[in-house]
This record gives sequence, structure tokens and C-alpha cells, in this order.
Amino acid sequence: MRTKIFCLPVLLAALALPAAEGMFPMNGMTPAIAADMKALGCRFDPADLWRPGQKCLAMAVVNLGATGSFVSADGLIITNHHVAFGAVQSLSSPERNYIRDGFLAAGREQEVPAPGYSVRVMTGFENVTQRFRSALRPGLAAEKRRFLVEKISKQLVAAGERTPGNECAVAAFYGGLEFYLATYFKVRDMRVVYVPARSVGEYGGEVDNWMWPRHTGDFSFLRAYVGKDGRPADYSRDNVPFRPLHFFPIARTPLREGDFTLILGYPGTTKRWHTAAEVANEVQAVYPQRIALLERYIGLLEKASQADDGVRIKNAGVLKGLYNSIKNNRGLLAGLEREAVLEQRLRIESELAAWIDAAPGRKKKYGRLLADIGRLAAEEREVAGLGTISGWLTRGCRLLDWALTLNKWGQEKTKKDLEREPGFLDRDMANRMARLPISQRNLDLASDKAVFAFFLEQLLAADNPGIFARLRNEVERAPGRDRGEKIAAFIAALYQGTRLGVLKFKEEMFAADAKAMAASGDPFLALAARIQPDFAALDRRRSAIAGGWLALKPLYVEAMRQARPQALPYPDANRTLRFSYGRVEGYAPRDAVRYAPFTTLAGVLAKHSGEAPFNLNPAYIAAAGGDGRRLHADPGLGDVPVNFLTSNDSTGGNSGSPVLNADGELVGVLFDGNYESLGSDFLYHPAVNRSIHVDMRYVRFVADQVDQAAAVLRELGLER
Amino acid sequence: MRTKIFCLPVLLAALALPAAEGMFPMNGMTPAIAADMKALGCRFDPADLWRPGQKCLAMAVVNLGATGSFVSADGLIITNHHVAFGAVQSLSSPERNYIRDGFLAAGREQEVPAPGYSVRVMTGFENVTQRFRSALRPGLAAEKRRFLVEKISKQLVAAGERTPGNECAVAAFYGGLEFYLATYFKVRDMRVVYVPARSVGEYGGEVDNWMWPRHTGDFSFLRAYVGKDGRPADYSRDNVPFRPLHFFPIARTPLREGDFTLILGYPGTTKRWHTAAEVANEVQAVYPQRIALLERYIGLLEKASQADDGVRIKNAGVLKGLYNSIKNNRGLLAGLEREAVLEQRLRIESELAAWIDAAPGRKKKYGRLLADIGRLAAEEREVAGLGTISGWLTRGCRLLDWALTLNKWGQEKTKKDLEREPGFLDRDMANRMARLPISQRNLDLASDKAVFAFFLEQLLAADNPGIFARLRNEVERAPGRDRGEKIAAFIAALYQGTRLGVLKFKEEMFAADAKAMAASGDPFLALAARIQPDFAALDRRRSAIAGGWLALKPLYVEAMRQARPQALPYPDANRTLRFSYGRVEGYAPRDAVRYAPFTTLAGVLAKHSGEAPFNLNPAYIAAAGGDGRRLHADPGLGDVPVNFLTSNDSTGGNSGSPVLNADGELVGVLFDGNYESLGSDFLYHPAVNRSIHVDMRYVRFVADQVDQAAAVLRELGLER
Repeated sequence: MRTKIFCLPVLLAALALPAAEGMFPMNGMTPAIAADMKALGCRFDPADLWRPGQKCLAMAVVNLGATGSFVSADGLIITNHHVAFGAVQSLSSPERNYIRDGFLAAGREQEVPAPGYSVRVMTGFENVTQRFRSALRPGLAAEKRRFLVEKISKQLVAAGERTPGNECAVAAFYGGLEFYLATYFKVRDMRVVYVPARSVGEYGGEVDNWMWPRHTGDFSFLRAYVGKDGRPADYSRDNVPFRPLHFFPIARTPLREGDFTLILGYPGTTKRWHTAAEVANEVQAVYPQRIALLERYIGLLEKASQADDGVRIKNAGVLKGLYNSIKNNRGLLAGLEREAVLEQRLRIESELAAWIDAAPGRKKKYGRLLADIGRLAAEEREVAGLGTISGWLTRGCRLLDWALTLNKWGQEKTKKDLEREPGFLDRDMANRMARLPISQRNLDLASDKAVFAFFLEQLLAADNPGIFARLRNEVERAPGRDRGEKIAAFIAALYQGTRLGVLKFKEEMFAADAKAMAASGDPFLALAARIQPDFAALDRRRSAIAGGWLALKPLYVEAMRQARPQALPYPDANRTLRFSYGRVEGYAPRDAVRYAPFTTLAGVLAKHSGEAPFNLNPAYIAAAGGDGRRLHADPGLGDVPVNFLTSNDSTGGNSGSPVLNADGELVGVLFDGNYESLGSDFLYHPAVNRSIHVDMRYVRFVADQVDQAAAVLRELGLER
Repeated sequence: MRTKIFCLPVLLAALALPAAEGMFPMNGMTPAIAADMKALGCRFDPADLWRPGQKCLAMAVVNLGATGSFVSADGLIITNHHVAFGAVQSLSSPERNYIRDGFLAAGREQEVPAPGYSVRVMTGFENVTQRFRSALRPGLAAEKRRFLVEKISKQLVAAGERTPGNECAVAAFYGGLEFYLATYFKVRDMRVVYVPARSVGEYGGEVDNWMWPRHTGDFSFLRAYVGKDGRPADYSRDNVPFRPLHFFPIARTPLREGDFTLILGYPGTTKRWHTAAEVANEVQAVYPQRIALLERYIGLLEKASQADDGVRIKNAGVLKGLYNSIKNNRGLLAGLEREAVLEQRLRIESELAAWIDAAPGRKKKYGRLLADIGRLAAEEREVAGLGTISGWLTRGCRLLDWALTLNKWGQEKTKKDLEREPGFLDRDMANRMARLPISQRNLDLASDKAVFAFFLEQLLAADNPGIFARLRNEVERAPGRDRGEKIAAFIAALYQGTRLGVLKFKEEMFAADAKAMAASGDPFLALAARIQPDFAALDRRRSAIAGGWLALKPLYVEAMRQARPQALPYPDANRTLRFSYGRVEGYAPRDAVRYAPFTTLAGVLAKHSGEAPFNLNPAYIAAAGGDGRRLHADPGLGDVPVNFLTSNDSTGGNSGSPVLNADGELVGVLFDGNYESLGSDFLYHPAVNRSIHVDMRYVRFVADQVDQAAAVLRELGLER
């Protein structure tokens, strides 16, 4: 019945083709997509999106974990507020609270280094599938397949990085049907130019996270510096601003509902090519289990935080992340159930099965495919819970994390970079050491122990395959009448004897070799050496499963494409540069409710309660009450636009992505998706999936009226 | 600034004159209002609204506490679900759960009596101002004035009620500037015809209370019976259906956004003529204090309810009411603050002051008015808190309530009805006795004591005027080192000795005289006799204040009307029959959000979670999945309309009011106002104040497809 009767807005949205679905790789432009873009109103030449190493739209896009873009010839970058936040945090002191008040460099010389920050511009994107295909013969054992993919990738990267300033990465597309080598120009002297006050940049905070209507000024400006020779260089006063091949001019024509929009950015991962069996794993096992564990994890940390305010502050960051995760996971699971994603996949696969059955040639090639997938997914489900729990155990219990990391580092450091496990290259470890003091500041040993005890119990209970035999033995040997008591005694002994809670000791051990570590006599390090094989065993199991998928997924995609011409015309997101197109568009979240695509300054003021996260500062309130408001108002809205919605397809990693109008000018900066799009990693729903952006006119209002950032505005070409 | 820049919907709404403000008395039709109604699309003759005692729209409207209306020539009445709920409750048994499943009489003979129910049709509305004006000479003492108003009212009522079947009431308009005698034809044999399942009639429950979008089937059908002679009669099998002078036909043309609507009903009280000083009392003292007390009262009962499920069930009804009150009070206070009502009143009164000052004649007549008002309001504020607390003390502590009631009843019963205090007429006491068994069933003595202790402490702390001297002495005499201990000992002694927790004893005492009560030796009754004068003293204080307002308010209204031609052209609601007009209209609750004026069946299903209050029964779900949904769908919405919004002005008491279209046909039944209208008792805001109604097409869908109420539909002229 529900498929027959629609309320009007849904009906209109459904008729509103062309759809905005798809995050396309840079070489993915087709005549059909170009026509679609034109039909939506695009006026620039779609071919301008990507010309490797030449002036084109993509040359203005940067990757810095999230996404950003050049907005001046002098390497000025706009990205999200939270992206620059870490840098501002390290500049702050009790006297100069840049976190609270924001930061504005008085001139170029006052732009301050952002330690640990770098940006990458993709300059090449080469199809290297053949290199893999020739090595990956059919019938190869899963683990071997996985090993070869890693090995060939490392070789390709090493070859690509022989050119100074280049950074390379290999990415698998369509589950391994295709492989690409992405080449990046990497700038590593990054400086902070302008960050608005936290009350603007984080307005709405966790309360409004994923929500619409939204009123967040989630923007900031950084600048990329290079050596005088134009090459990447470490920080130096003599460095000069990087001059990108392209930067985005700021739009002068007011953005309106229905306008064409293009997004460029680095979406993380999506699961739209997941098989039905994988979706079943996620819907029936992974997410329900994650949510249940998160509820208890949060409860445990909240309880630990009741001890005193100091502990509360230490745990605040982790708790914020956990609340974020559980809200995300709940929304995602609700979305999957609402959209009946599993049922849709099952339907598609039964069509695929019929197609395979209909011809002997197909039967020969794909006859075992779906059964093989079923078996592999069952194997995956068996260790999925274990993976989740061991992940939280090692991430959540920092002493265990450091014990395992140091132990492995002691072994890996003796190898050459090329032969090391991912995550243990010299640059990875340098990053970890750089972050150590912050992590140390927030270490509460009582919380750490409680988290250890909780996840250890969960891990042993979930370990049906018997992978953690060594760890189980360690616990069993501890005194106590039942597992609870044994775990408590086991942990108490570890924490009593260890020095891993001391920063200096960690630093010493980081520099030490395996022998010196053993000689330290630290019980936690000794334990890590004994139980490392358990974690390695789990990694091997998962690696073998990944290898299995590397064999099956390409076959699946190949068969699906033949069986269903309407199959997805794009690969899942995989942290490579993508473009997506759409338009400015509201939506109907529920019966009798319609969301407009723009919010306004009046809405910012209406939410202002004086309490964080809705606590504007006096300068802002004065600016909102001044004549500048009229100056920056959109004629149609009668007020300053703040955030806006578009139908562009996006996901995590797209944060900070430039939003371009039909002329390729910057109209906004992406910073979120709406709650209804949380399930879109599995299925894009055109009626309700929306990306959320900060409007460049709001950036201009804040920079001009609140922060008097005249130099930044001049550089953007927005001087009055 | 906010007054200069509007978002678009607000602007449109502001331009959308004529406004829908005003709940007008039945004789309040003016050429301007008639023209307004016509401009909004009204097609019936506005003069058809009211022709005393003759066929006219008002003759189809009934008062039963809330409001209802005749929908057939045979006295069939439609009103809200919750209005008939009490009757259904008394019919229910564990075997026949009419509360849960609803009730549908198989035929006229199966229509069951609704004990305690009666309806009144207003047949006369006579201006009796002259009777009062001649008696109420200027300069009369406040208490005397109040006494005279009561006395004259009683005389007028007694004279009017000499005609059998008549019930009369006097109501003051414009704070005593005008008085009217309303005459009602009262039918007291009421029977239950059809009540839908609670899951339909209360769908959304407390969660959705005052909220939009809404999906509640808040309707039910009763029938009025009279003696064979057409006169009101007690229940008898021989009675016949009452034949009203008019009933509302059900609309056949689909109601649409923008359509004209008229509401008739019995709104309780509004405060739009409140002086600035009175508004200040409410905003600064009454509501903040009420909310703070309610928070603690709720906390106390929640804690008491943790004892066991039995106590929880007993306290559930009271708690539901308290949650309702606190949500209401918070919304109301927020509305008052948002709309800056106090500031508006102060502005108006400063204009009034200037007008008074501008001419010697005015100065002579009104020169002391505003100062007098200030003094009276200050007096009122002094006892306002005491009034609130003593009200909750006596309502919340049932044993004290009964002790005080029985004690006073012992005195009042010796007088004639005419001489008794309001609330102690024979019929009032008969009603109280009828409700006693229900009250007894929910009595939990531990909760009762806790409530007593809490409010007693509050009362003594707030009693700055020293009104409760006797009660204070009683407490002081109890053993204990501080007030807390004394109160505990005082209460413990009372509850240990009393028999007021026993139903039979209460019934005996109800029949007893003052002497017999004293002889009972019950400590609670003895206490009541000793402290009754305290409560009487508070009543006298408040009565004197009311008398003061009876002198000042008419002057205030008179002056205001001259000073401000744009002053409100209607009196505050006062439980008399009113009409209000408006149209079907959504609203913008906040930035970027727009509410449509209709909800649909799809929205009902979307809210269905399987858990109360969103728990549809299988019959409903089957009906929603059947072809009947298409049959009852609105062509524009593409689905069955469920609830709708109109801009009609209304307030509590309007529940069950008929909503008529431009042709005077029934399109809906009012059951709520939106959250944004909670402040509308003080100020009507056309952009956001909305009444919420159940759509007659939803009534028809539920009756036809879910409950197969063929006979009811036939009687409504809605047979297929």
C-alpha cells in the first residue's frame, strides 16, 4: 500500500530526475553524466573537472584527512572549522584562548604553523589494474592473494614516490575489479590564517549533529607554504605561499533553491556494492551488537566520570566520540530498516541468480558465486563481533594499546619501511609519537582499567573460534573463583606493575629495541609479547577473508553489471577524490513537515540560549543587530543565509568539500549529512538524502561583520 | 532588528488579513466581523449563527464540560474521545475491555447510559448588566461588591430555572463591565453510542500532546435522550432520543488548505484583557513558582511510585495531569517571554496613561486608575503563591480535602441551596459523592502523607501575610526539634487516628451533621474544624481582591477602549458559548521548517512502533492496508486526511468543538491547540497560533474501515 500512495513532496522528489546519486572517480565522466549535469543546469564544461597535472577544477581540491579547497592564488585554503581546530588548540593558552575566541592572523607573518598538518593535491590517477590482474591468477589462496595485492601496491607506491614531493597510494575499486595508483603533490608547511570563534564554528554542537535545520559556521582558513623553489618543504620562515594550478573564485550570484551544485572531495567508504549476505551481517549482527556494546561502554565511562570533574574532563573527548558513534549507528540501522535495504539486495540477487541459471556459459562461470559469497560472509560474521570488540579493547584501553604497539614496533622497526605492516612505517609512528602527549593528558587509569575489564570479558565470551587462546590462558591463571574475579585480579596485577602510565617510560620504550623492552620487566609489555600472536591470528583470519572478497567481489560486480544494466554506474567510495552533482533542495522528513533548503541568521539567533552549544558571543550578537545584516542578506530570503541543503551524494571524509555552482564558483563548504542520510552508505534515497553546507555568504558575513577579517576578504575578492 | 527582517512564511502570514483572532460571544456579530468572514470565504449567512431558541447553528452545539455538537436529528452527538472516556471506563470489565478496544452499540437498545454525563444547549443569552449596575454603586467596599454580584447572580439563576429543564448561569464580561444570563436546556440522560479503540482515540498520548504533526482519532459519539414529552428526564428505558433544533450535516466537499472554518464552543478562560500588573504577576511570580513546585511535586510522586506497581498505578492519573500541567505551564511561560507580552502591555498602558493625562475630564475619572490597579495587583501577588500552594495542598492531599469538605458540608447542608457557598449546592455534592469510589480506588496513604508534608511546609514558608495562623499553631504544638520534624509528627498523628481512608466512613460522615461529625472523634475532622477559618480567611482575602477587580476592570476597559480604538473587540473567554472564524492553514514553527495543515494516514503508520502511545491494533493495520484507504483518500493529498490545523482562535474548553466549513457543514472536531499557542491565553499570534482538529474524513475512515460502524455512518448520512 505504501508504495502506491505517496504524499505530494515525496512524489515530486521521485519525479525529479535526473537523480543526484553517485560519487564518481575523477576519470568517471561519461556523456550520460555530462548530459545529466547539463540538464540540472551546469554551465561549466564537465571536461574541466579533471585534467591530470593541468589547470582544472580538481587542482583546487586538497585532502587533509577530510577535504578542503584553494580559494586564492596564494594557497589560501578553506575547510571546516573542526579541521583546523586541532591546530588552534595547540596555539591556545589560558591567556590567549583561541579555541574559544577564534584566531585571525594580523598579516601573513602572523600566520602560525599547524604542526602535524599537511595537504595533498591529486595530480595523477593511473589505472594499474593490469599489474594486479597478471599476478592474481584465479584459484590463488585467499591469504596469498591479499599478500600479493599489498606487495604490488607497495612497489607501485615506492616507484611513484621516487619523484620528490610526490605521495602515492593504490586503491581498489569495485572490490578489486580495478586498481588505481593515485599520485599526490604533498604540501607539509601548513599555517593557520583564520578560524572563527568556537561558538560560531561549532554552533549547535552535538545537539545539532546530523540535524536539520542547522546553523553552524563550520569553516576555517589555512594556507599552504612551500620552499622558494616551489617544492614541498618543512616549515621555514623563508617558505612562500604555494601557488595552486587552480583556485575557486567565490560566487557573486545568489544561490537559490533548485540551483545546480557540484561537490569535489574525499569520501571515505560506502557499502553500496555490498552483497545481500554482507548487508545481512551488518543489519543482523554488526550494528545491533555495536549499539548494544556502545550503550554499555558509554554507561561505564559515564559512571567512571562521576568520580570527579578531572576524570570527567579526561573522558569527555572519548565520550563525545562514543555518543557520536551511537547516534550514527542508530540512525544508520534505522535507515537500513526503513529503506528495507536487505530485502532490496535479496531481490536483486535473486534476479542475478535467475540470470546466471538461464545460460550454461554463465552457469559455468558464476554458478558457484552466490554460494561462495554466502560461505565467506558466514565466516566473516563469525569473527565480526570479535573484530569489533578487540578494536574497542585496544583503542579503549590505552595501556594495552601502547603495550601492543610498542611490542610490535620493536619488531617492525628492524625492517625496511617497504616490508613493514601497514601503520608501522616511520611516518606513521612519528605521527603517533606526536599525538602521545595529548593522549597522556587525558589518561585516567581507573577508567582505563574499567574499559579493559569490560571488553576483555566481552572478548572472551564472544571468542567462539578460539582465536584468543593465549589471552584466555593468561586470565585463567589469575586467582579468582569465576571469570569476573579472575579478570579483576589479572588486570589489577598488570596495572600495579606497569610503568606504561608514565609518558617518559613510553618514550624510552619507543626508542628501545625488542630486547631492551623485554629487559624492562614491565608486566604489560611482557603480556603484549605473549598475546600478540592472538591479535595476529585474528588479523590473519580477517586478512584471509579480505583475500576471499578480492576473489569474489570482482566476479560479483562483473556478473551483476551484465545481469542488471541498471546496476550502480560507480564504485564504492574508497578515500579517493570523487565528484558528485545535485542541486539545492529541501525535503520532507515526515508527514506534514517540509524542510526548506536554507537556514538564516534569524534561526541562529532563535537558537541562542546563552548556554553551549548555543552561546553566541557579544560581538556576534552586535553584528547580527547591525546594518551589516541587511548588507549580506539574500534578497529572496530577506536575511543572511547560513547553511543549505543539496541533494549531492556524499559521506564521511567529504567534510570541508567545496560546493560549486553552475559556473564552477564556490558557494559553500560541506560539513555534514542529514540524519536521514545515515543509511546512505548502503543505499542513496533521493527524496531524503541531503548534504549540509555552510553558505559562503555566511562565511562572508562572519568574516566581515563579526571578525573584521578584511585581509582574508580582500584575498577572496570580497572587499566591499 | 527582528522586527525589520522576517522570513518569508511569517511575512505572508502577517499580510494574510483578515486575522482569525477573537472568540466572540453569540450576540457579538458585527458588520465588520460578517464582512471579515465573507472575505475569508464564508458562504452561509453570519446571522444564522445565533437566533435564541430558534433553529440556528448554535442550537447544534452542546456543553458537557468540554464541547460537542449534534450530528443527527436523533440527538447523536460527536465530541472528543477523552470526553466519553470516563463513561467507557465505567462500562469496562476485565472480560470486556472497552477502554482498550472501544465500544460500538449494536443498535439503539444497546446504547448504554453514561452515568454523571449531561449536556446543555444554550437557548438564551440575556444582557442583565443593568440589574448589577444599579446595585453596584461606585465606592462600594470590595468584599461587599463581590457579595452583591454573587447574590444577584443567584437570584437571576433561580428565577431563570423556574422553567423546568432550564439551567442558568450568570457570567461577567470585560471583568464586570457587562453581565449576561445564559439559559440552557439541559439533557441528563446521556448514552454511549460509539467510541473508537484507545489506540486510535489517544494515538500519540502524552508524547504528542500539544504537538504537530498530530495523528489522533480523538472523537466519540454519544446520544442525548429525553422523556417522551420531550422534556429532560433521568435515565429511563422509555426515554426517546432528543430532537435538536439543528444538527450539523457532514461536509461532502473535500476540505482544503485556505478554506474558511468556523468553530463554536465553550472556551474556558483567557487573560487578554489582563493589565500589565497582572501579566507581571503571572510572568514573574505565578508561573515560575508553579513550574518549580510542579517539578518537586512530580519528583515526590515519582519517588513514592517506585515503591511498587500498585502505587504506581494509583498515582498514574495524578502524575499524568501534573506532567500535562508542567508542559503547559512551561510552554505558556516560554510563549509569554517569546512574544514579550509584558512589554507589550506596558507599552499599551503607557499610551493609556498619556491619554488619561491629556484631558482634565479624563484625569478626574481615570487619574487614579493605574495606581489603584498597581496596588491591587501587588495585593494579589502577595497571596498568589499561597493560593497556588493551598490549592495543591487540598487537591493533592485527599484526606485533608475530605476533612475540609465534610466539615464545611456539615455547616452548609443546613442552609438552603441559594444561601450556600459555590460548590456546595445539592447537585455539586451529589457529583462529588458519585466520583468518590474512583478517587478511593486510587488512594495511596503513603503518597497522600508525602504530598501533605511537602505542601504544608511550602504553605507555612510562603505565608508572609500570616493567614494560616491556626494551622501554624497546630504544627508548632507537635513534637520535634525543627519544622520538618514537627510536620512529620503532626501528620503521623493525624493519619494514625483517622478513618477517612475508609470509604464507608466517608459516606457516613457525608450523611452526618456537624454534631455527629464532632462526636466521631476523628482527628482529621477535628483538625478541619479548627483550621477551616484559615482557609476561609484566605478565601476572604481573595474574594476582596476579586471585588477590587470588579470595580477597577470595567473602568480600565472603558478607558482603554476610548484611548485605543484598536483595543480588543471581544471579551475574554469565560466558559460561555463563543464563535471564532479562521481558515485551514499551516505554519512555520522555526527557521527552515514549514508545517503543512493536514496529516495523513501514512503519518499514522509511520509513527506506529508497537509501543503505547503508538500501538495500532491489527484491525486498524489491516484497514490501512486495504482498498478502503483509497476510497477515503483526499484527491489532493493522495491519502486519508487525519488531523488538520486552522487559524481559529480557541482555548481549553473548546475541546470537542465542531469545525464548520463555508457552508456550515461539519468538517472536523477540535481537540487541541499547538504548542506555540500555549501563550495565546494572553496574546493571539496569527503566524503561529493554531487549533488542531480531527478531520471528519478520518472519523469516516475509522468508523467505516476499522470499526464497521455502519449504523452510525447511516445516521450521519455517510452510507456508501
